[in-house]
Amino acid sequence: MEKESYKKEYKVLKDIIEKKLDEYVPIKYPEEIYQSMKYSLNAGGKRLRPIMALEVCKMLSGSFEKAIPTACAIEMLHTQSLIHDDLPCMDNDDYRRGKLTNHKAFSESTAVLAGDALLSYAPKLIIEKSKLSANIIMELIREFCIAAGVDGIISGQIVDIDSENKKISSETLDYIHEYKTAKLFILAIKAGAIIAEGTTKQIQELEKFAKVFGHAFQIYDDILDEVSTLEELGKTPGKDANTHKATYTSIFGLDNAKNKVRLLCTQCCDILENNKMNSIILKGIVSDIMERVC
Amino acid sequence: MEKESYKKEYKVLKDIIEKKLDEYVPIKYPEEIYQSMKYSLNAGGKRLRPIMALEVCKMLSGSFEKAIPTACAIEMLHTQSLIHDDLPCMDNDDYRRGKLTNHKAFSESTAVLAGDALLSYAPKLIIEKSKLSANIIMELIREFCIAAGVDGIISGQIVDIDSENKKISSETLDYIHEYKTAKLFILAIKAGAIIAEGTTKQIQELEKFAKVFGHAFQIYDDILDEVSTLEELGKTPGKDANTHKATYTSIFGLDNAKNKVRLLCTQCCDILENNKMNSIILKGIVSDIMERVC
Repeated sequence: MEKESYKKEYKVLKDIIEKKLDEYVPIKYPEEIYQSMKYSLNAGGKRLRPIMALEVCKMLSGSFEKAIPTACAIEMLHTQSLIHDDLPCMDNDDYRRGKLTNHKAFSESTAVLAGDALLSYAPKLIIEKSKLSANIIMELIREFCIAAGVDGIISGQIVDIDSENKKISSETLDYIHEYKTAKLFILAIKAGAIIAEGTTKQIQELEKFAKVFGHAFQIYDDILDEVSTLEELGKTPGKDANTHKATYTSIFGLDNAKNKVRLLCTQCCDILENNKMNSIILKGIVSDIMERVC
Repeated sequence: MEKESYKKEYKVLKDIIEKKLDEYVPIKYPEEIYQSMKYSLNAGGKRLRPIMALEVCKMLSGSFEKAIPTACAIEMLHTQSLIHDDLPCMDNDDYRRGKLTNHKAFSESTAVLAGDALLSYAPKLIIEKSKLSANIIMELIREFCIAAGVDGIISGQIVDIDSENKKISSETLDYIHEYKTAKLFILAIKAGAIIAEGTTKQIQELEKFAKVFGHAFQIYDDILDEVSTLEELGKTPGKDANTHKATYTSIFGLDNAKNKVRLLCTQCCDILENNKMNSIILKGIVSDIMERVC
């Protein structure tokens, strides 16, 4: 019963995000750059991060409407990171979510520029569409910049690339997971709480949740990379092993990876419960991952 | 006499910018990304845009100190655009300002990431270091995003790349100059005026100045590309002609290009004079370009 209502609510939020993402980016001259941005924004995906931002805002009794531009801005940042990560000079991926990657569908130069464009489109959207106070907007953009830059995904990606074909410590792997993956979840969840004007304690606890969830999600992603087919994954499977990327599964083995995901997911549920944060969506997302590694 | 004091004042501003750029970007773990950002930020250049931002703020009796973070943020954006423009998939340049380009000194993936990192480092700097009201910071970041994205340099670059090996109209050339070049000068000059809380009329007139100056500067740059040696230019000369890029000189010839620069520079001086904007620096920058095409 709860599962059904989770799926229904999730779909409502996902549809809002996808409709708004499409609406926020019209096609103007020069068409190619807008088409390229929209191509990757509309390429599907679970929309986990924007949905978590909306849900946290709702859970803390914030204005749902006012959180939509920020939620979409976070999805734009996520999309930017995927476009640039897929480039030939980075992970060199031809497929993403079952479609050609941006540089394959357009060109390498357009893909670089589409990523760059999304990095400034997103904060501009927060400023122009949020209807929030200047102080809150400033705080949101600061968090956005932290996640987007050297205090976030950029440093995660640099260390990840640098770790290829190397034996790395579990501390370095933790660093990659935290910076490359968890920082975006932290942004999403903190942004929702900032818009809802949550208490310092609430924000701290939610940040803890996001960090643990980010680690769980990355290990889960590594497991999928190892056990899935191209159709299931939407991108080339086994790539991590082929490029000798250090992953949790390659260091600790598949069974330990699954156990670790279950452990981290249980911690996520505990944080929510201990703080009386009753959200069907957050609990549902965590359960989804937990079930899939069973 | 005025020329000497221009040179002296210019050097004072340039030294402030270079000292602060170095200070604002420390080297931390993971070192490579910080080193790569600093490499391009410290690679020299005239620092025209940040100097113009500081000077406009000073001219309109604004707080010079408070404009420094924004001026440096604008130089970071300019540097980002150069790092990405130099990439093999774009202009494919090996040299910039007499030094190896970022992707040659580091790697292509690091250069992409260093550019990305600067795009969020810059607005974060404005937020954290400016000591300005949240409203002014929001306005500055909005202008920053306009210049950085599809309403600015990105669209200029897309149309520029798309115009290679093509015969383009003078309207398209104007578009490239306005978006690829003028938009950053408009940002610099508007930012200075916003920080000084200039009047709407002052901001409008300064925007006009910046737009005309941006066109003059780009045509002047095209002329240099045609007539300079590698040593004078610090990058490969004649590249525009070799890649069949449409430039003002290739469409209208060298003499017409020189005349156009002189005409635009005269317009710049007129705007300053008509608005009683008495700035040795702004006048000096315009005169410098005018003299060099004589």
